[in-house]
Amino acid sequence: MKTLTAQVITQEDLLKHWQGHRALTRRLIEVFPEKDFFEFSIGGMRPFAKLVDELLAIAVPGLKGIVTKQVEAFSEGEEKLIFKAQYLEKWDEATAEINKYWEQLSIEDFSENFNLFGQYEFPIIQNVLYFIDNEVHHRGQAYVYLRALNIEPPFFWER
Amino acid sequence: MKTLTAQVITQEDLLKHWQGHRALTRRLIEVFPEKDFFEFSIGGMRPFAKLVDELLAIAVPGLKGIVTKQVEAFSEGEEKLIFKAQYLEKWDEATAEINKYWEQLSIEDFSENFNLFGQYEFPIIQNVLYFIDNEVHHRGQAYVYLRALNIEPPFFWER
Repeated sequence: MKTLTAQVITQEDLLKHWQGHRALTRRLIEVFPEKDFFEFSIGGMRPFAKLVDELLAIAVPGLKGIVTKQVEAFSEGEEKLIFKAQYLEKWDEATAEINKYWEQLSIEDFSENFNLFGQYEFPIIQNVLYFIDNEVHHRGQAYVYLRALNIEPPFFWER
Repeated sequence: MKTLTAQVITQEDLLKHWQGHRALTRRLIEVFPEKDFFEFSIGGMRPFAKLVDELLAIAVPGLKGIVTKQVEAFSEGEEKLIFKAQYLEKWDEATAEINKYWEQLSIEDFSENFNLFGQYEFPIIQNVLYFIDNEVHHRGQAYVYLRALNIEPPFFWER
């Protein structure tokens, strides 16, 4: 639904904001050396590939659940990807799916509760902000991995 | 200004969201050992104290500039803090200042452009989202520092 009333953020701009972050995360995947993407870790944390598995398991499945009002359990990395190129392909597929599902949301939906993955019963706006924040959080960790590998990461404000 | 029209996110909830993230960052400051807060680093990155200097230099000065429409240059860490307790005190002062300035914003303001620190000419909503994202990004780095120090960080969803 379109409205002419002032919005703190419009639905369109929130999508742009999310996809801008996703574009930056994609650049980080590209910048990682193939081997380090799957293996490099600090302090017993997950390698970046595992973090990206999580991000992929949240974004489209989460948004799809919201739009279709189907509560499904969280499920991660059912399909084992072994090359960065496969991750980039999945990432781009997710980009298109997110755009598609987003169109099916109305402004009114954002304040409605949804039980995300059957575990997190919150207004949809909070679910969406969680998708974004969780990605920024884990990508911040990947920035440290890159620095530790002596690789210059992309600028944070590049989207 | 209050409105009864549906919002993707209300002004009040966006503040809660920001302050929730700030509460989590505060917990991370608390959890860091005193010495490591100022000295520990990976891959030549800034120690967490320096990252927090940046966060403090952005949040209140940025929001104050937006509300008062005064464009001032970015200026970081003019006052040298040498104890974690001083950072926590500054953090709490900033929390109250943010609440105070936030009240002076109207919904219409968020789509207006502001030249943040005389460098970033964007709609105010983008400035505010940048404050939050930049904090989540740097805090994600601090999570890696804690893990590398073998210290269990707070859960990401604790706010």
